[in-house]
Amino acid sequence: MTELTAAQPITWPDGKSCAVAFTFDVDAESPLLTTDPAFADRMGVMSHQAYGPLVGVPRLLDILGELDVDATFFVPGYTAERHPTPIRSIAEAGHEIAHHGYLHESLVGVDEDTERRILTRGLEALANIAGVRPRGYRAPMWEMNWHSPKLLAEFGFEYDSTLMDSDHPYELAVGETDSLVELPVSWALDDWQQYCFVPDFSGVGLIETPAKTIELWRAELNAMRTIGGAWILTNHPFLSGRPGRAFALRDFIAEVCAMDDVWVASMADIAAHVRRQQLRPRTLTRPVFSPVEGKENES
Amino acid sequence: MTELTAAQPITWPDGKSCAVAFTFDVDAESPLLTTDPAFADRMGVMSHQAYGPLVGVPRLLDILGELDVDATFFVPGYTAERHPTPIRSIAEAGHEIAHHGYLHESLVGVDEDTERRILTRGLEALANIAGVRPRGYRAPMWEMNWHSPKLLAEFGFEYDSTLMDSDHPYELAVGETDSLVELPVSWALDDWQQYCFVPDFSGVGLIETPAKTIELWRAELNAMRTIGGAWILTNHPFLSGRPGRAFALRDFIAEVCAMDDVWVASMADIAAHVRRQQLRPRTLTRPVFSPVEGKENES
Amino acid sequence: MTELTAAQPITWPDGKSCAVAFTFDVDAESPLLTTDPAFADRMGVMSHQAYGPLVGVPRLLDILGELDVDATFFVPGYTAERHPTPIRSIAEAGHEIAHHGYLHESLVGVDEDTERRILTRGLEALANIAGVRPRGYRAPMWEMNWHSPKLLAEFGFEYDSTLMDSDHPYELAVGETDSLVELPVSWALDDWQQYCFVPDFSGVGLIETPAKTIELWRAELNAMRTIGGAWILTNHPFLSGRPGRAFALRDFIAEVCAMDDVWVASMADIAAHVRRQQLRPRTLTRPVFSPVEGKENES
Amino acid sequence: MTELTAAQPITWPDGKSCAVAFTFDVDAESPLLTTDPAFADRMGVMSHQAYGPLVGVPRLLDILGELDVDATFFVPGYTAERHPTPIRSIAEAGHEIAHHGYLHESLVGVDEDTERRILTRGLEALANIAGVRPRGYRAPMWEMNWHSPKLLAEFGFEYDSTLMDSDHPYELAVGETDSLVELPVSWALDDWQQYCFVPDFSGVGLIETPAKTIELWRAELNAMRTIGGAWILTNHPFLSGRPGRAFALRDFIAEVCAMDDVWVASMADIAAHVRRQQLRPRTLTRPVFSPVEGKENES
Repeated sequence: MTELTAAQPITWPDGKSCAVAFTFDVDAESPLLTTDPAFADRMGVMSHQAYGPLVGVPRLLDILGELDVDATFFVPGYTAERHPTPIRSIAEAGHEIAHHGYLHESLVGVDEDTERRILTRGLEALANIAGVRPRGYRAPMWEMNWHSPKLLAEFGFEYDSTLMDSDHPYELAVGETDSLVELPVSWALDDWQQYCFVPDFSGVGLIETPAKTIELWRAELNAMRTIGGAWILTNHPFLSGRPGRAFALRDFIAEVCAMDDVWVASMADIAAHVRRQQLRPRTLTRPVFSPVEGKENES
Repeated sequence: MTELTAAQPITWPDGKSCAVAFTFDVDAESPLLTTDPAFADRMGVMSHQAYGPLVGVPRLLDILGELDVDATFFVPGYTAERHPTPIRSIAEAGHEIAHHGYLHESLVGVDEDTERRILTRGLEALANIAGVRPRGYRAPMWEMNWHSPKLLAEFGFEYDSTLMDSDHPYELAVGETDSLVELPVSWALDDWQQYCFVPDFSGVGLIETPAKTIELWRAELNAMRTIGGAWILTNHPFLSGRPGRAFALRDFIAEVCAMDDVWVASMADIAAHVRRQQLRPRTLTRPVFSPVEGKENES
Repeated sequence: MTELTAAQPITWPDGKSCAVAFTFDVDAESPLLTTDPAFADRMGVMSHQAYGPLVGVPRLLDILGELDVDATFFVPGYTAERHPTPIRSIAEAGHEIAHHGYLHESLVGVDEDTERRILTRGLEALANIAGVRPRGYRAPMWEMNWHSPKLLAEFGFEYDSTLMDSDHPYELAVGETDSLVELPVSWALDDWQQYCFVPDFSGVGLIETPAKTIELWRAELNAMRTIGGAWILTNHPFLSGRPGRAFALRDFIAEVCAMDDVWVASMADIAAHVRRQQLRPRTLTRPVFSPVEGKENES
Repeated sequence: MTELTAAQPITWPDGKSCAVAFTFDVDAESPLLTTDPAFADRMGVMSHQAYGPLVGVPRLLDILGELDVDATFFVPGYTAERHPTPIRSIAEAGHEIAHHGYLHESLVGVDEDTERRILTRGLEALANIAGVRPRGYRAPMWEMNWHSPKLLAEFGFEYDSTLMDSDHPYELAVGETDSLVELPVSWALDDWQQYCFVPDFSGVGLIETPAKTIELWRAELNAMRTIGGAWILTNHPFLSGRPGRAFALRDFIAEVCAMDDVWVASMADIAAHVRRQQLRPRTLTRPVFSPVEGKENES
């Protein structure tokens, strides 16, 4: 088996040292409904999730417009069906809409046929509601299967944003001859771990301040500027759309836009730039291993 | 199905930019007893909860009196029965008492008849003990059913404070012709997530400093002043009645009262103001969805 | 049923405004062994717990000696049997040793006879190893039964330090005619929540800095100085005996000792002072309640 | 049974007051695969773990080279087999490679024969891939059995780094006549608790800033310089190899290297120095205890 190798650094447009993308996963009610349909009966928690498209998205669109930033919104198909107006407004404001499953389905243990049906339902919803055909994909919970990249190529996606093994974007080999641009992410660059508390669903009660959260992101960004990779931030409108967080994010986006060595762009634009570099695709492989036998583990 | 729409901004009295309510959920022993009656046998944890009405309430009443703030206390009926003197003292000090269930019952999966009995028991306890008829309601754990608003209207409540889909208060449609004022809340504006640790019941051990907690609340408030919504803080006397927290809260309330663009008022006064705006009621709907079939999920 | 009433403020010696006790629970291996005897097989975690008596206790005794502070050590009987030298050294240094169970047994659901056997085993161990007869008791995990105070009085204890319903010490009624001094505690004044991580036993990985921990404690102490209660800090040598924490604690103890309105004393001395006030005992009662019937709760 | 005694202080070379080792556990995919082989199917989480050897190790090697620090890398055998190039590069850069199990197996409840097979597989992998014979061992999750030290001596290891009962290294008695050098560790000196979040595997979402993490480590180091022990830091390349964390670590290593009372060395060099002190071995013993009978515990 061929050994895994790391992605190589790439150059950025206009001599910039680092690419930055502000991305938003418009999960809304979907992650809860796919986990347990009975969440639909809980008016309180459904209202908590609806805050994202109803309040968070318009507020974030205002901020992005004010700062003239092209952002990328990953939208589960069902979110578009339940909240068509805010989702259409994303496209109307000129931002990119990308695929994020139909009902934010976990792909853990999902077979290819089911995964194809999920991709199809998501595409149909985004086409029907927002009139868009997404160029990019992000797996819910950043978890996909070894067969997933082949399906993404089959469906004509240009890039994926799910994996975590690199600071630099790369071409992900799909079979012998095809590839996808991979725009890798990181748990440290996600607002969920800092802010999310939904009883019976996620979080243990930890709710950090925007100041701490921005400090974490700034430390990573400043290092990434030296490293020359792509710094991809993921926010959720139901979390970071709240007033104090949205305002702190606005100030931070403004701070980033003022860095003259940073290229702020949509994911699709970054992917297109990466593709033009004609990188040699990386092949990722499933671990093959044989545990030591006879192990007796009580725990 | 009609699409959900966001609540609209409203104007505040005297040209103020933001409404603020300091609310206190006097849970005491109730949340534990409703979760598992065997908690009643545990003298230690019962004493931890009793701190709220015995020590926290008088201390907080002193602070509110000193700062001349009208606050709102959501009181489970059983808390009033077990701790009549502190609950009466709330009313005697001129603060609002509102409904918070009888034994802080979770409404998840509860049918209408049971919910009616809970409302009735809570009303009876508050009438018997404190001689009050509450105008407002807050569901325990901020979780209610799609049928709950209809019951609240039936019982004559003027407002509810359970939902989380807006920064602005709104009229919540109840059936075709009725409505309730909704005063929405947020997990970030609750002391429980910052301070609560009760072994075998809640929390994983995280106990934040008052300084961090106030920093979080201040960030949200400052943003809300720009947005023009209602900033509704929820404290629990068994948590925020502790000395260091109560004193930090006092200093913060004083800071807020000195903001000349902020209207500090009871929930009932805010609800009455909202009602006078004659807003068009918002209709909230249960999500309807059909998951992708054939999904095989191991996890 | 008589209503619970809050404890009343008391005066402190020499016009001091606040009493302070530094207490140490020398749990060592006991809490793990009582939870699951198989922890005894795990050499790693046993070594983590042994750090308390082997390294933490001598270091903390040095600090207390240097600062001339009389402290109180709550010692499970088994800790004394397994680590006799450090436990004896506590007594030899003139500090108080108090009862903390035999194997740090949880008293949840424990009947009177078993509880008596635990008290006896703990007393025997402390007598045999350290030659002491403790005047005070603290229930493991700050959890005891409604019958426990009667047993403590039966065994001749003068004070208990388990309950959490007051900032002020009080006389806890035992039956019609007897009483114990209660020296109440608080989860915010415990190093466990700030520092403890023992895989498969306690904690989710949160490990705070000493600076944050001291900030939390200082905020509570400064407020308590105004309130006039007793500020009782609980540290665990296996946690706060670690170098950085012990040194931060030393600096904080020195800071507290320099406050001229604070009376730093052992728990026994505080209890004796409280007793001399001849306070009227408070009667605490088990909650009696009848839940609303017909409640159907899915969760 | 002989009472446990604490390790004694030792002197360090050239009059230094404290030894410091920077150690790295190159866990990569192993801890997940040993916990549940189905993690191998999850491309997302596998890519998260592969970041360690692919990106983290080269970055950390650059930093260590720049600062001229000899470090120690604990490498599970399977990590070496799956990622031979980065593991070889560790040895080529002159750093120490030590044993960390084959598949990062938990030793809880593992019998001697199985443990021998694990040691053998790990040794074979490190010999085959990197051409090294490790002098040191660290048990996965810092958990081993009372029979483990005997096996380590049997296999010719000179030191172990698993236990937590001392600030000072010591000779750990093995049977009557043999011993291993023990280089003890601490949960507070591990990046896992500060940074790790892997859904369905570890962490509750807490992700701290590098600044907070370094503050924690600095507080412990400054105290250890006074105490004169060995301050042993453990980082994981899949966590601390991320840009912001790696750069913060670099700055901190530089700060430590500039302390003229600190001896920065590899674990093997520290172990060799300790061995030359000809310390009397400490005997650690399994706790023997008899719980109080009749205890009825509901929880």
